[in-house]
Amino acid sequence: MSEPAAPPPPNPTRAPGGATTDRRLLRGARTRRTIARHAADVASLEGLNGLSIGRLATDLGLSKSGVATLFGSKEKLQLAAVEAARDAFVDAVVRPVAGTPHGAARLRALLESWIGYATAPLFTGGCFWAANRPDFDSRPGPVHDALFGHHQEWLALLARELRHAVDTGEIAALDTDLAAFQIDAVLTAANIALRLGDTGAVDKARRVVEGLLTPPG
Amino acid sequence: MSEPAAPPPPNPTRAPGGATTDRRLLRGARTRRTIARHAADVASLEGLNGLSIGRLATDLGLSKSGVATLFGSKEKLQLAAVEAARDAFVDAVVRPVAGTPHGAARLRALLESWIGYATAPLFTGGCFWAANRPDFDSRPGPVHDALFGHHQEWLALLARELRHAVDTGEIAALDTDLAAFQIDAVLTAANIALRLGDTGAVDKARRVVEGLLTPPG
Repeated sequence: MSEPAAPPPPNPTRAPGGATTDRRLLRGARTRRTIARHAADVASLEGLNGLSIGRLATDLGLSKSGVATLFGSKEKLQLAAVEAARDAFVDAVVRPVAGTPHGAARLRALLESWIGYATAPLFTGGCFWAANRPDFDSRPGPVHDALFGHHQEWLALLARELRHAVDTGEIAALDTDLAAFQIDAVLTAANIALRLGDTGAVDKARRVVEGLLTPPG
Repeated sequence: MSEPAAPPPPNPTRAPGGATTDRRLLRGARTRRTIARHAADVASLEGLNGLSIGRLATDLGLSKSGVATLFGSKEKLQLAAVEAARDAFVDAVVRPVAGTPHGAARLRALLESWIGYATAPLFTGGCFWAANRPDFDSRPGPVHDALFGHHQEWLALLARELRHAVDTGEIAALDTDLAAFQIDAVLTAANIALRLGDTGAVDKARRVVEGLLTPPG
């Protein structure tokens, strides 16, 4: 995935007493993030359809009306959970390797941070996306589009690094979109296998990725 | 997956009136299969945890006590749904290609029947396994073991055909377990992508499989 979008800036009120309003808005934004992150955990376990404003309020000791004010609707809550899951993924997998040179080195670093993420899942219920994609695949709408869009971002990030590696002559020419599809596929398969207790799949994923990063010649 | 196990033979009572008992048992076995197949559909949509004896009885116009007699417990009902899903998969994907010669030809035929299965899903809710693996990955028990075991059978079937293709010199030497892992991974990824409306992934899966079936030399 590419760099995460910054959280929307609070919209400061220009009226007198604006400082207080700003603080309240910032507090609201912070609470909103806490709730959204917890919602991602709940959804990783019970699915986005299992989310409810009442349940989150109870879990976090907040008032139901307060949570309702922050999110408005169940769909907005679901979308916030999807964004929180994406941000957690970016923080765990993408951000730590931002200092690694582009190309093969960055791809290997992404692979290792991804394996770390899969081995010690970020979310209570394991993979947020595996738990939720099947539920939304046949339900068009904003949640479907967000899940699909994040996956496309991740594929595009892999393809960009592959393209860089090809263009600089680090690796042999290949179809970068096809190779990104393969890398994502074996990582997903390794994740599923890990969850089922088959640890050998991680090594298989590494070997497939290494196979794609063969130097030219 | 390998050939499906035959359904367990009814255990005929040897007492007088055995013919009637047999018929009743057979009728029971048929009803059991109908219920199990419907349970697989429900589970593809709502997960195996969404199954209940009462709900299936209502859906199929049967008595709750009758369904309870046939399955006994929710876990047995879940296991029956998993077996029904596997049988449906074998009937749709594996059995139709049983006449194709082993090796590369059988693998290509499996690929095409698998794509047919993914394009027109067997189950109401799409992929039965994608819907249920995430729920059971962290819950040890017989349902987890059945889901895991069926996946291993499928990987073993792919590896056997690859081994045959290597041994007969049809394709270049490769690590058959690794290649089976890759084929399964890209098929799963293509299935997810198809569900999300990205039809190009099927062609990518075909290209990856063809890449693995390269003739020697």
